[in-house]
Amino acid sequence: MTNKKLFETIKKNLKKADNAIVAVHVDPDGDTIGSALTMAMVLESFGVATTIYSEDGIPEIYHFLPLAEKVVNKIAYKVHFDLAIALDASDISRVGEKINLREVASFLINIDHHPDNTNYADINYVEKRSSTAECLYQLCKYLKIKINKEMAACLYTALITDTGNFRYENTSVDTFLMAADLLRAGLNTHEITTNIYDTRSIPSLRIAARALSQMEFSADHKVGWTVITKKMMAETRAKGEDLIGIVDQLRSVKGIEVAILFREEKGKVKLNLRSKHDVNVSTIASLFDGGGHNKAAGAIIEGNVEDVKNRVLTEVLKHVRV
Amino acid sequence: MTNKKLFETIKKNLKKADNAIVAVHVDPDGDTIGSALTMAMVLESFGVATTIYSEDGIPEIYHFLPLAEKVVNKIAYKVHFDLAIALDASDISRVGEKINLREVASFLINIDHHPDNTNYADINYVEKRSSTAECLYQLCKYLKIKINKEMAACLYTALITDTGNFRYENTSVDTFLMAADLLRAGLNTHEITTNIYDTRSIPSLRIAARALSQMEFSADHKVGWTVITKKMMAETRAKGEDLIGIVDQLRSVKGIEVAILFREEKGKVKLNLRSKHDVNVSTIASLFDGGGHNKAAGAIIEGNVEDVKNRVLTEVLKHVRV
Repeated sequence: MTNKKLFETIKKNLKKADNAIVAVHVDPDGDTIGSALTMAMVLESFGVATTIYSEDGIPEIYHFLPLAEKVVNKIAYKVHFDLAIALDASDISRVGEKINLREVASFLINIDHHPDNTNYADINYVEKRSSTAECLYQLCKYLKIKINKEMAACLYTALITDTGNFRYENTSVDTFLMAADLLRAGLNTHEITTNIYDTRSIPSLRIAARALSQMEFSADHKVGWTVITKKMMAETRAKGEDLIGIVDQLRSVKGIEVAILFREEKGKVKLNLRSKHDVNVSTIASLFDGGGHNKAAGAIIEGNVEDVKNRVLTEVLKHVRV
Repeated sequence: MTNKKLFETIKKNLKKADNAIVAVHVDPDGDTIGSALTMAMVLESFGVATTIYSEDGIPEIYHFLPLAEKVVNKIAYKVHFDLAIALDASDISRVGEKINLREVASFLINIDHHPDNTNYADINYVEKRSSTAECLYQLCKYLKIKINKEMAACLYTALITDTGNFRYENTSVDTFLMAADLLRAGLNTHEITTNIYDTRSIPSLRIAARALSQMEFSADHKVGWTVITKKMMAETRAKGEDLIGIVDQLRSVKGIEVAILFREEKGKVKLNLRSKHDVNVSTIASLFDGGGHNKAAGAIIEGNVEDVKNRVLTEVLKHVRV
């Protein structure tokens, strides 16, 4: 189906619905949240009563977004919707275990940018773009929906979180044209970036400082790693979400090809791998029953942190040396 | 003069020149360098033999840019140019002490985005935009210059370094439209961002980690500060340029209004101030004979680090409390 036909079919279904549910994926990120909130606003502009569902709620960092306070993590027993729309979920299971969108709604639409999307819905608008927000924006333009300041805030948040603020390779001409258009809608980008990037917790800075002051490198400096112990977590009062970005800082060192973060947990070690150029860290993670993408992958490995570190480093060094 | 008239006059002068010198400002940043290298390419497309001058050379981080290796920090005795163009220099003195553009060239053009530019040249194209690169891009569009991949790399580097990779308030609709257009020219943004953001030195990470592990806060957490001693610099082998970004990381803490970095030097202390919202840190810096912008300012203060710290904190706390 061409996008034009797809968009027409989506339009028809938005128009005939009386009520709808929009759903984000579990462990929700900026893209799924920003896209779902925008979709809810679009539905309301069509006069559709809309429920926004997130099994895991909304992380505090996104609480500033319009409608964020309307998000629910459960729906009333036996309630039924005309329409369900999943945003940024590559498979129906990504929406969570506590809801079955197929059962609670008569019709299901899937809007996503992941190329490995399983096309699980009645209508699947799946297009490889920087973000689901960018797909949704294309739909909005087709539907001639006036992007207001609130929608722009949600779409921009989604866009910058999925492109590393325009730093990842997925940033395209369309991405920048969309950003320009969102600014035309009266968007205050400074407010968004302050909320997203300038609200770090003190424990998150403290744990990053501790971790990076103890970083180590292979002799040729192509591999860099650091270990976060349970003791360090306790002393800095850091939580799991405070560790975001530490491995990327390590990766930013000149000459580094692979950066590794080892996090000690009870009886196991969480492994986080980042690659700068050609090393495929997903292949390395799969040796330890993990997975991910070429340049960002992870695994959870049984054992104590010293043993795991040595096992992983042996494998990583093989890949970097070849 | 309207931009159209200005651009026509600039065009006329580019066309009639046989040789030219383009100059960056002292302590050159990405914007002045990227703009000067682009200007050199524009001049060469007009058949003008061009010298690129930088009194302080080119920082290593920008060595990857095309033509960077052609930059000189001195010119031959008694050489004379038809044309000189200063890029991103708000005053002629910003080009440095070792050259007098007025003397070495018959005609001087000034292209800049700083509103406080002193209009020191024969032609002054000064427009408040995100960067000098954005001004130069407007000129290139008017002159119908085909932006090639090399120019795009220089202009994009200039654009992202002066907008904090599209994070500062100076980012506008035009900024994003320019970025989109540079991508159309075949720009590899990933290559640029890797060169600019992923080439940190190990000492720079170590000193940041040390500094941030010792950060302190006022009781209400609105003011945060840290001290970098001579001992810390020696132990981490850090240089002055390795300290860039540390005060911004401190500023990124949730709730912080003013972030301060104190750097101990021989008999004096270098002060770096950042504000998140309404506090004007330039006013505070001026109390200590320093200066800067509303949200980023600095000073150099005689005295030992403990005394200076106490004096500065007293003033900062007054401003935050009001």
